[in-house]
Amino acid sequence: MINHNYEKLQGSYLFSETARRTAAFQQAHPDRNLIKLGIGDVTLPLAPAVTEAMHRAVDEMGRAETFHGYAPEQGYEFLRSVIAKHDYQDRGCDISADEIFVSDGAKCDCGNTQEMFSGDVHIAVCDPVYPVYLDTNVMAGRTGEYDGATGRYAGVTYMPCTLENGFVPQIPEKMPELVYLCFPNNPTGAAIRKEELQKWVDAANRSGSILLYDAAYEAYITEEGIPHTIYECDGAKTCAIEFRSFSKNAGFTGVRLGFTVVPKELKRDGASLRDMWFRRQGTKYNGTPYIVQKAGEAVYTPDGQKQIKEQVAYYMENAAVIREGLISCGYQACGGVNSPYIWMKTPSGMTSWEFFDYLLDHAGVIGTPGSGFGPSGEGYFRLTAFGSHESTKEAVERIRKM
Amino acid sequence: MINHNYEKLQGSYLFSETARRTAAFQQAHPDRNLIKLGIGDVTLPLAPAVTEAMHRAVDEMGRAETFHGYAPEQGYEFLRSVIAKHDYQDRGCDISADEIFVSDGAKCDCGNTQEMFSGDVHIAVCDPVYPVYLDTNVMAGRTGEYDGATGRYAGVTYMPCTLENGFVPQIPEKMPELVYLCFPNNPTGAAIRKEELQKWVDAANRSGSILLYDAAYEAYITEEGIPHTIYECDGAKTCAIEFRSFSKNAGFTGVRLGFTVVPKELKRDGASLRDMWFRRQGTKYNGTPYIVQKAGEAVYTPDGQKQIKEQVAYYMENAAVIREGLISCGYQACGGVNSPYIWMKTPSGMTSWEFFDYLLDHAGVIGTPGSGFGPSGEGYFRLTAFGSHESTKEAVERIRKM
Repeated sequence: MINHNYEKLQGSYLFSETARRTAAFQQAHPDRNLIKLGIGDVTLPLAPAVTEAMHRAVDEMGRAETFHGYAPEQGYEFLRSVIAKHDYQDRGCDISADEIFVSDGAKCDCGNTQEMFSGDVHIAVCDPVYPVYLDTNVMAGRTGEYDGATGRYAGVTYMPCTLENGFVPQIPEKMPELVYLCFPNNPTGAAIRKEELQKWVDAANRSGSILLYDAAYEAYITEEGIPHTIYECDGAKTCAIEFRSFSKNAGFTGVRLGFTVVPKELKRDGASLRDMWFRRQGTKYNGTPYIVQKAGEAVYTPDGQKQIKEQVAYYMENAAVIREGLISCGYQACGGVNSPYIWMKTPSGMTSWEFFDYLLDHAGVIGTPGSGFGPSGEGYFRLTAFGSHESTKEAVERIRKM
Repeated sequence: MINHNYEKLQGSYLFSETARRTAAFQQAHPDRNLIKLGIGDVTLPLAPAVTEAMHRAVDEMGRAETFHGYAPEQGYEFLRSVIAKHDYQDRGCDISADEIFVSDGAKCDCGNTQEMFSGDVHIAVCDPVYPVYLDTNVMAGRTGEYDGATGRYAGVTYMPCTLENGFVPQIPEKMPELVYLCFPNNPTGAAIRKEELQKWVDAANRSGSILLYDAAYEAYITEEGIPHTIYECDGAKTCAIEFRSFSKNAGFTGVRLGFTVVPKELKRDGASLRDMWFRRQGTKYNGTPYIVQKAGEAVYTPDGQKQIKEQVAYYMENAAVIREGLISCGYQACGGVNSPYIWMKTPSGMTSWEFFDYLLDHAGVIGTPGSGFGPSGEGYFRLTAFGSHESTKEAVERIRKM
């Protein structure tokens, strides 16, 4: 009667285990001041332009003549059209408002979009990988059993991302039907150049695969030549769905707003994926709160843009402090240039979890073991730039003295 | 490659078709003033206790020291504990905060909870029925093809609700694994007495079925002996999941807040459904906005309770006006006593759609054809109590003169 695929899932979720070890350490050493650079949650408050818009929206909801009931399941036109213009048309990408679906966040959309595909399609994921892509497919029965010896699920194409390939995976010889890509990447912090991403688009158009492209961190791109959206590549509209989030560019992790782009040109088996997603959202989703959509609209005002760019710049100062601090101490570290994540090689052949305990014990700094993101993450470690300037500098100083 | 179950779905969604006919009529008769008693959306603004709490929460989100990032996927403890006390423990139901899962609404949860069950379980739905229960299962492949002659999907147990059985269905001789029940009912407005619901609970416990109980309209119950939650029945914790919503009791259709109760005692095939749902939400959901959860908390304050009870009373005055008006004109009408919906028999053997056009043309009143909710709804028509007092009275006067 129940969905037995859940039994394939691996029990201890990465962040539960890091939280457990942290709590045990703190209990044993109540005097130690720990610095958390583990979880990818933002810390700066919402920008004034955003809170002002939310206050206005709350007032509207409190008056009969401006009250808003059920929102359109696809999202209000006022938000979809500003997204289409700012994030796509202004970059030369021909994406229109009716190809944009507003939601409560990219995490939900990454899981839910699978429902458009049959239960037996094959998937490819990067290794290491954001666990949600994989676990949601495990739950939907698109994988075999987990093999403890390899740390992998049967039936899944894993694409290793390592120092050797600059954390940009090789295109599989046989492309599975669904390929998850995330750039700038969580957890490795790697970015992909436009000419490299174009090769993926071309390969997908040749094989008929669909690229599920997570661009949640595009606001952190600082270098030229790095695409902010996959639709900068020619032909992406016939092979790619893109996930976007307000969590990291505008600090909306607790506000919940994202969107998914499903182009009208994207068709498989004679069906329009855009129309299928429209039907899915109309049937199973009931719209994003009006107040939250007004908050999202405020992000695109001149004041909103200025304020959120200052927030991203604040975090990117932290990223530079961590990255350069680690390198100056002799560690191998990458990321942190187009992304808020720094990905470092553990020293002296330590495993990721050994280094987690070592760093906690010797520096009182909490990061995330790379092996928690997949077997190719073994021997790596993730630090995030979402702390305060003060605590980030303090963390790097402690690592230097370690 | 794609999920071909979508092709079984019937094209024109009920409310799209009523909107299309309404727009066409209004275009042909621009001078006619139409009164909309069709869609179940609220019209009164948010209560002052709610907007005040939301303003405070927005301010908190705008300051670093009180900012809230990612919320717990299950919901904040402050909201879950007040729900457990007010909605369950105070009614003598032993439901605890860790059995409550806060979400963005009952519609999402009704669809998503299916993921805990295998793809081949059988379902039972009332006929007429809220289309979401059925369509989401069609999309998940738990039905066969649609039969245009009967208006039914193959492989589904339909439970007719008619005037003859007081719109409370008979318990199927062979109970399917999943049984959807909604009381007070949308669309019929019927309520179920506690001793009747107890029979369903007993039957489910005998057969091992699970009752998916939608209690979104419990705030509209005015009569004694009508259960506000299925957990008022003995043994419900081993056979029932309950869906609840803030949409209709507090006017949150555009705010998005609901919750689902999955008791710890509910187990199948040796697995805890509560633990499965916890894992599902942790993996595929990213928490309900902090601001929305604070709005929900405000609903339970003394001021909040007083204010939302006034709103429900306002709508229930409308319900009485419609119900009594229709009966005094000689129509057969029910509902509207424990529910904001009035369900009437069409006159003179008209079909539901014939009466839709007739009512639009002769009274300028828009309702919802009963046949849109299932074949047993043919010959019935739904009116809702969510208009203003003035427009509701006017609508009944126009029907009287029709």
